[in-house]
Amino acid sequence: MYNQDTIIALATPSGMGAIAVIRLSGEDSISVVDAVFKSKIGNKSLSKQKTHTIHLGHIVDNDRFIDEVLVSVFKNPNSYTGENVIEISCHGSVFIQQEILQLFIQNGIRLANPGEFTLRAFLNGKLDLSQAEAVADLIASDSKASHQIAMQQMRGGFSNEIEQLRQELLNFASLIELELDFAEEDVEFANRDDFQKLVHKITAVLKQLIASFAYGNVLKNGIPVAIIGEPNVGKSTLLNALLNEDKAIVSEIAGTTRDAIEDELIIDGVAYRFIDTAGIRDTEDTIESIGIKKTFEKASQAQVIIYLFDSSIVRNRNEKEQKQLLEFVLVEINKIKTKFPDKKLLIIANKTDLLSDKEVDNINKIIKNILLLSAKNNEGINELKNELTSLANTGALSNNQTIVSNSRHFEALNNALKEIINVQKGINNKLSSDLIAIDIREALSYLGEITGKVTTEDLLGNIFANFCIGK
Amino acid sequence: MYNQDTIIALATPSGMGAIAVIRLSGEDSISVVDAVFKSKIGNKSLSKQKTHTIHLGHIVDNDRFIDEVLVSVFKNPNSYTGENVIEISCHGSVFIQQEILQLFIQNGIRLANPGEFTLRAFLNGKLDLSQAEAVADLIASDSKASHQIAMQQMRGGFSNEIEQLRQELLNFASLIELELDFAEEDVEFANRDDFQKLVHKITAVLKQLIASFAYGNVLKNGIPVAIIGEPNVGKSTLLNALLNEDKAIVSEIAGTTRDAIEDELIIDGVAYRFIDTAGIRDTEDTIESIGIKKTFEKASQAQVIIYLFDSSIVRNRNEKEQKQLLEFVLVEINKIKTKFPDKKLLIIANKTDLLSDKEVDNINKIIKNILLLSAKNNEGINELKNELTSLANTGALSNNQTIVSNSRHFEALNNALKEIINVQKGINNKLSSDLIAIDIREALSYLGEITGKVTTEDLLGNIFANFCIGK
Repeated sequence: MYNQDTIIALATPSGMGAIAVIRLSGEDSISVVDAVFKSKIGNKSLSKQKTHTIHLGHIVDNDRFIDEVLVSVFKNPNSYTGENVIEISCHGSVFIQQEILQLFIQNGIRLANPGEFTLRAFLNGKLDLSQAEAVADLIASDSKASHQIAMQQMRGGFSNEIEQLRQELLNFASLIELELDFAEEDVEFANRDDFQKLVHKITAVLKQLIASFAYGNVLKNGIPVAIIGEPNVGKSTLLNALLNEDKAIVSEIAGTTRDAIEDELIIDGVAYRFIDTAGIRDTEDTIESIGIKKTFEKASQAQVIIYLFDSSIVRNRNEKEQKQLLEFVLVEINKIKTKFPDKKLLIIANKTDLLSDKEVDNINKIIKNILLLSAKNNEGINELKNELTSLANTGALSNNQTIVSNSRHFEALNNALKEIINVQKGINNKLSSDLIAIDIREALSYLGEITGKVTTEDLLGNIFANFCIGK
Repeated sequence: MYNQDTIIALATPSGMGAIAVIRLSGEDSISVVDAVFKSKIGNKSLSKQKTHTIHLGHIVDNDRFIDEVLVSVFKNPNSYTGENVIEISCHGSVFIQQEILQLFIQNGIRLANPGEFTLRAFLNGKLDLSQAEAVADLIASDSKASHQIAMQQMRGGFSNEIEQLRQELLNFASLIELELDFAEEDVEFANRDDFQKLVHKITAVLKQLIASFAYGNVLKNGIPVAIIGEPNVGKSTLLNALLNEDKAIVSEIAGTTRDAIEDELIIDGVAYRFIDTAGIRDTEDTIESIGIKKTFEKASQAQVIIYLFDSSIVRNRNEKEQKQLLEFVLVEINKIKTKFPDKKLLIIANKTDLLSDKEVDNINKIIKNILLLSAKNNEGINELKNELTSLANTGALSNNQTIVSNSRHFEALNNALKEIINVQKGINNKLSSDLIAIDIREALSYLGEITGKVTTEDLLGNIFANFCIGK
């Protein structure tokens, strides 16, 4: 599957800019650039230059000058891919980019496939597989949280630890399999106590990493938040108040699983996705028949539920009426708590601008831990943002703990854990070494999938197909 | 006007890509990057590295890793700007680009103004002014022709020649002014024959450059073409046939001088702008009252006029009728020729698919040099394109002659020519040296404006304000 041919691609974003960078990788990359490069100083040959040096000159097509460029030389193995790499920094005209690409394609160089540079880096041992995947995550990162997770993963993250544990386990596997060769002599090369300790350790690490996924995944993709409540309590006003404040960093992203539009908002470096809020806004003024079912549907997809109620219901009522009305609200809140015990719930009393101080006090007395807010007057919005931030930061992000955010890793970790539990069961049940060895091999295979020690063509194909071309 | 402070900007197109390049220029650029750069190999200090070398490491904000980057070091004066320059090649995430820019801005580095890197290159003598202007043209170039003109200008083009002539003229000016100091002694330091020769030479060069502008300007901006003709002769079908063939390289560009949409089409590396064709298409089916006036308006803006008529008018007519009808067309064609004697005219008989061979022969006999075409059946379109290409190539482009495409240069050349003509008149009329000297000084000043030997803050401000940021 690994072609050794020389590839080329535009590495910078497409479009016009001050400069653009075109990258070549492969055995011939230096010589093919040399053939069309006219140095500013004498007849410099690029192949005679040191690695990591930059050279000013022109790219020429026979006697036609295409551009004045800077050429960076990286020599095998000291490059991103581990092969000979050339980066051509040209003027950022789309026309010039195309002319240079076409010149090399005419000279037999192939356009790179998506992620092919990083695939080569992986195959040449410059990165492990989880680091290679982090490169794509890093490029796609759009918030502090997703950036931090990708950076951590690219710098080794948990894959170093996994690889070390895998090596230790591999060691035991070899010893145990060796015992099988001497089965009749009943020797034990593998110290069973040490082996038991290792299995414990692996189990603990796997469990912790698996547990981090739920959190890592939402941080990477944005924490899903549902704003729910009766019609006309001000859900859309609240959402607009949240979004308008940060217009510059608000984007409307098309939902991938269905046609709904989701609003994304970044608060303090963490992305939040407001689930199907377009739907909420559209249906808000329609009949209530959609009711509780639709609301619960939305809430079930969320990580955080914001329950909003209209506090002005108590306005100008006597104490008894106020109590009654607020107890209705409490019933609703308890319904949600019962239905979604694991979700984080924020309760918000909206429209407090319409209330007297006494009425506000009364609400606080009857419903505990609520946030008072006037979406219309933009009051309480910052407090709500702070609440969201503190919910996000109760996780592992704040203390730099290792976080798994990749669903492929999550799956492999789960599979590995299952096999390790089988190994543990085998030990407990005093199974014969040959049976335990089978489970160990399975666990080794799943752990190896994470770092790429064990790969298939399909697996690599799937991973790198999602990269952009030029990386 | 020239701040020596250190500036920073994103140099690659905005948006997500495999990599992005951030550029710093100024005395402190190496040291400020050094302060946030952690080399992969030991504690490498960037300031101790050779110029034109590349270094792998991380950009860190205290203990937070922002990205793994390649840092290119260019040392004063061996850089684009002539100052210390650093280029940081980071992962092409918009978030990372912003984080790195913000890190440096927090550390006191200023965001560059549009074109400020190139302005510094000019002020430091790395480029003359016309070369600096060519950089912007090069980045904006979108066809072979505009690219070739910009490239020629950036590589020195006519500004070397202008500068040399200016030096010679300056020499004579000094000698003539020296004579004034010795006015009572009636000496001639400046050889009048040589001076006359130089004035002749300058006049010839200026005239040739001025003449090239009309051509250079249209090549740079696209050759304006008007398709005119009676309603329902197939103008819009023809335009669509032209455009559809090259869908990939067709763009709709908003007209800059008015609100009309112009269709741009690149044929064989040369751009053509179809003037107000949206208008033609919109009004084609409306009443004829707009008529000839509007048509002539369009034609007056064009460089090339395509006159289209419906050849099927002669279908199934007897010879006499055919002749009569075609002579009406000839009258129309002659009107256009009389009105626009300087424009290139292509006459096209459309809808030839409806005619017999004999009818076609008849048309050819009566109207000379016409192109037979069936826009509907896509017949004759390639022939039309070849005609357009040969019209474009009759100019200076094909023989690599120097072409002026910048209206500022055109103006300065015209002004210089006016003054040189005054000098010539002065010589002819045997004016006194002191009067001639004044005109020479004026001519010198205009010539100096082209290469930037004579500049004002306003002039530089105007030129560089049109650059993109990062160049």
